[in-house]
Amino acid sequence: MDSAWITWARITASTLTVLLKIPTGTGWRVRLCTGMCRAAWRHVGSRMQQLKKIDKVLPEIMICGRSLDIFLDDIERFHGFTSPGLVLGGFMVDWAQELIGLDVEADAVVETCHCLPDAVQIFTPCTIGNGWLKVLDWDKFALTLYDKRKLNGYRIWLDLKKTLLFPKIYNWYMRRVPKKNLSLEALLEEILSARRSVLSCRAVQVTRMYGRKKKGNIEVCSTCGEAYSTSQGDQCITCQGEGYYSI
Amino acid sequence: MDSAWITWARITASTLTVLLKIPTGTGWRVRLCTGMCRAAWRHVGSRMQQLKKIDKVLPEIMICGRSLDIFLDDIERFHGFTSPGLVLGGFMVDWAQELIGLDVEADAVVETCHCLPDAVQIFTPCTIGNGWLKVLDWDKFALTLYDKRKLNGYRIWLDLKKTLLFPKIYNWYMRRVPKKNLSLEALLEEILSARRSVLSCRAVQVTRMYGRKKKGNIEVCSTCGEAYSTSQGDQCITCQGEGYYSI
Repeated sequence: MDSAWITWARITASTLTVLLKIPTGTGWRVRLCTGMCRAAWRHVGSRMQQLKKIDKVLPEIMICGRSLDIFLDDIERFHGFTSPGLVLGGFMVDWAQELIGLDVEADAVVETCHCLPDAVQIFTPCTIGNGWLKVLDWDKFALTLYDKRKLNGYRIWLDLKKTLLFPKIYNWYMRRVPKKNLSLEALLEEILSARRSVLSCRAVQVTRMYGRKKKGNIEVCSTCGEAYSTSQGDQCITCQGEGYYSI
Repeated sequence: MDSAWITWARITASTLTVLLKIPTGTGWRVRLCTGMCRAAWRHVGSRMQQLKKIDKVLPEIMICGRSLDIFLDDIERFHGFTSPGLVLGGFMVDWAQELIGLDVEADAVVETCHCLPDAVQIFTPCTIGNGWLKVLDWDKFALTLYDKRKLNGYRIWLDLKKTLLFPKIYNWYMRRVPKKNLSLEALLEEILSARRSVLSCRAVQVTRMYGRKKKGNIEVCSTCGEAYSTSQGDQCITCQGEGYYSI
């Protein structure tokens, strides 16, 4: 490694995480190093002086209008940890936003409940609670942002053919390697190197499942006295014995 | 109004919103004033000097570890607007957190997809994407925070009997008054005055729907070539004709 610098760092009581940017001649690659403080410092220690160098030739990466450090911070703050799916999801949202344009009021559909919904919730105005995001429990790593009036938009998905060039991403997503043998740092490095090159996009017209879900007709459950939607019957679901708790 | 002060203010190009705190003798009540800039200033204008007074006798309200202004800011930033359901939901989360204790790693269940999921996502570490929040589409204004290991926790719900003392909250939730006749400011004022007094809580043991949903067995759809869960059959749901878009 001839030169590199820290673009992001997080220090907790016991661990140090640094994100290094390393020039490759034609561009740069990133390297995420995490470890117990001592080990982490040993890992990067000898390079600390040169890491401070800022090489203006290398382009700054911007994702969803954020620098890489703010992008990773936002993920960790909302989601609790730097999940590979969420980092990849950030690149998906970024591409969809670029295609549809930031001046379009867009709603979102996400085709899995794992990780990806949080990418939409962090990087767009769409959330579960405000009804602008729909989550389909289909285990497909894909999302669509679409104009909420005209219903046209763009679907972005993880393209397996393209991941063949990025074996860590393929093995992680297809679960070809046991989780314990998969280095999170190495996987994140590969995702941050690959970015859009493992994704595909297509213009789509949304034909179903759009719009905000209407509330049902609200009445008082004759058994528990709580408000509920009468679409469930004469009693609420919990009083029908389908609840999730005992008292 | 003898004395009051601005505890929170937001100014956009055309509107001014201020949250006033007004002593009542036994405590205080809040009043939210919104309007076009001119009208809003007229509404509070003559009181501006005394609004700056800070009366230490009145207690500061803290919700989910935040002052009221930060609480409202966090709601608006994530959800896009100050939704009454989300403000009420903040008080629900606040109560559940107090009961279960902040040192317990808690998962969450929310019994409606309207507004309330965002209260959990803003004020706890639980999100849809990290799997620590489950959203049940039951139209019941209730949530449970529970210890993710022992499965015991607290369910908090909007108690209709108690809302009879707060008619604006009752009329809003039961939709007894058309939305256009319901003043958002007056409703928010009533919610901020009522706080926990319209809620009830109960200790519960979670018996179902806990834990993180496992991913299905992932394979490649023979038609579209995308990864999908084989629980859907030989093809993914979209290729079975149940998708939400046309190309």
